[in-house]
Amino acid sequence: MKRNPLMVVGSVALDSVKTQHGAVERAVGGSAVFFAAASCKLSPVATIGVVGEDYPMEKLQGLKNQGVDLTGIEQAKGKSFFWAGEYSENFTSRKTLITDLGVFEHFNPSIGGHLAKSRCLFLGNIHPAVQSNVLEQMDSPELVVCDTMNYWIDQNKKELLDLLRRVDILMINDSEARQLTGESNLLQASKVIQGFGPRSVVIKKGEHGALFFATDWCFSVPGLLLEKVVDPTGAGDSFAGGFMGYLSAQNAFTPDVFRTAMVYGTVMGSFAVESFSIDMLEMINEENILKRVSELKKLTAFD
Amino acid sequence: MKRNPLMVVGSVALDSVKTQHGAVERAVGGSAVFFAAASCKLSPVATIGVVGEDYPMEKLQGLKNQGVDLTGIEQAKGKSFFWAGEYSENFTSRKTLITDLGVFEHFNPSIGGHLAKSRCLFLGNIHPAVQSNVLEQMDSPELVVCDTMNYWIDQNKKELLDLLRRVDILMINDSEARQLTGESNLLQASKVIQGFGPRSVVIKKGEHGALFFATDWCFSVPGLLLEKVVDPTGAGDSFAGGFMGYLSAQNAFTPDVFRTAMVYGTVMGSFAVESFSIDMLEMINEENILKRVSELKKLTAFD
Repeated sequence: MKRNPLMVVGSVALDSVKTQHGAVERAVGGSAVFFAAASCKLSPVATIGVVGEDYPMEKLQGLKNQGVDLTGIEQAKGKSFFWAGEYSENFTSRKTLITDLGVFEHFNPSIGGHLAKSRCLFLGNIHPAVQSNVLEQMDSPELVVCDTMNYWIDQNKKELLDLLRRVDILMINDSEARQLTGESNLLQASKVIQGFGPRSVVIKKGEHGALFFATDWCFSVPGLLLEKVVDPTGAGDSFAGGFMGYLSAQNAFTPDVFRTAMVYGTVMGSFAVESFSIDMLEMINEENILKRVSELKKLTAFD
Repeated sequence: MKRNPLMVVGSVALDSVKTQHGAVERAVGGSAVFFAAASCKLSPVATIGVVGEDYPMEKLQGLKNQGVDLTGIEQAKGKSFFWAGEYSENFTSRKTLITDLGVFEHFNPSIGGHLAKSRCLFLGNIHPAVQSNVLEQMDSPELVVCDTMNYWIDQNKKELLDLLRRVDILMINDSEARQLTGESNLLQASKVIQGFGPRSVVIKKGEHGALFFATDWCFSVPGLLLEKVVDPTGAGDSFAGGFMGYLSAQNAFTPDVFRTAMVYGTVMGSFAVESFSIDMLEMINEENILKRVSELKKLTAFD
């Protein structure tokens, strides 16, 4: 079946990252880039974003070769979103050294043509008013998933709650779920979030895996056990890409399909952290992905 | 098949605990008590420990009624081991207010008679030299599992490493695994521990579940999603009790049996935290346990 591509809106950035295993300078990154690099292995995907005049578009050629529709990435006058950060020895904490929003500060995209007809939409972690604006331009998508972060929960909660009334799934990490709801118990937190609008909630717990809360069932998937984590940057967006890339390729969104989507999210997140930037995500093929899905099955199955 | 009871050696204590859901004063606790309360639902179990003259032995009557062999608990002159602690709002941290070792300070048990013939032995978290001394008195047990803690890793590493050469499985929590090995990656940490002697390693991660590392396979089980956690005290020992209680009732220790044992550990740990002391563990029956095993299956299974 021919489907409209999965659509993602988010940041397209340059990241300088230092971890115990090395460093990269001005590598391609941002939520929309990690999401696209992960989801494009599973489904056609189109990216909406903005970059400055300084962006090395040739470094996105790999995504283009994989069929990612980059026509929605606008190149604007000014500098690209730049983030520099450093992880502590055991990835227990992360220090932001520089955040330079550049052209991203005034990002408010117009969704034209075929992209407005996307069946599945991922609203990456950007200002909730911009997420709402994108959603309003869409031609009745079947599945809308959004991400957010502590900053927006703190500064723009009203706009965020307004958005949540209209999304199907909120995907956030555990500390954000607690911050948003004031509930430390994640089962209780998910119920509060469902009260805000989303019928399901995905809570990401980093190396500890992720949880899916529907109205009347839950699913828990642990993290894969990796020999070496090189750089955790983009893990959450790659999880989202695996999750939605799998969903976008299915005919119906049943509980079993959501469970398997969580598995693909976990698998794509695991590849993302094994290199800097999207290097590992670009290298892997279907066989690598299926092998890791099967590993996750062996890791968790019991009689 | 009639088997010798599973044997546990550990602390038999009185705990005063305060959490956001209430408080108890001088309730029965300690590693051997939580372990026995959990394991006795699955297998015959005998407890080795020491208490002072002040211990309310009648409060262990419930365990006795469940068939726990308490003849190995010596009542000595002096005070019982007493611990008082308080958990922070969301159980993110725990403050020890009082630790009074009492008669436990000079605990060094003699294992006599039928107990020395136990097939499965759990060496609860006590001084590693005492753990070794107990192990030496045993008549070739088939499966020896030991626990330890940060204090012994810090203060008695030589004695601990000496013990580890002779146990089958080390069961510790994630921070202790990192402390013991200097490896932050748990897969690498488990390999270092296997190099110390144990052929398998169980790493407990609290609400995030637990990991089993064998030589050539791993198993990961997430925590159950609980409506309310009342008191996390004893969760790890109850996990150990569920794990070993299940194992002790099996004919052979195959990979599938270890996987299921991890599930029973998770289930018994989940009951333990739903009340203070061993109250909930004492209330549950086989049906409650099987229901939760089935919930864990539903929580984790995917196609």
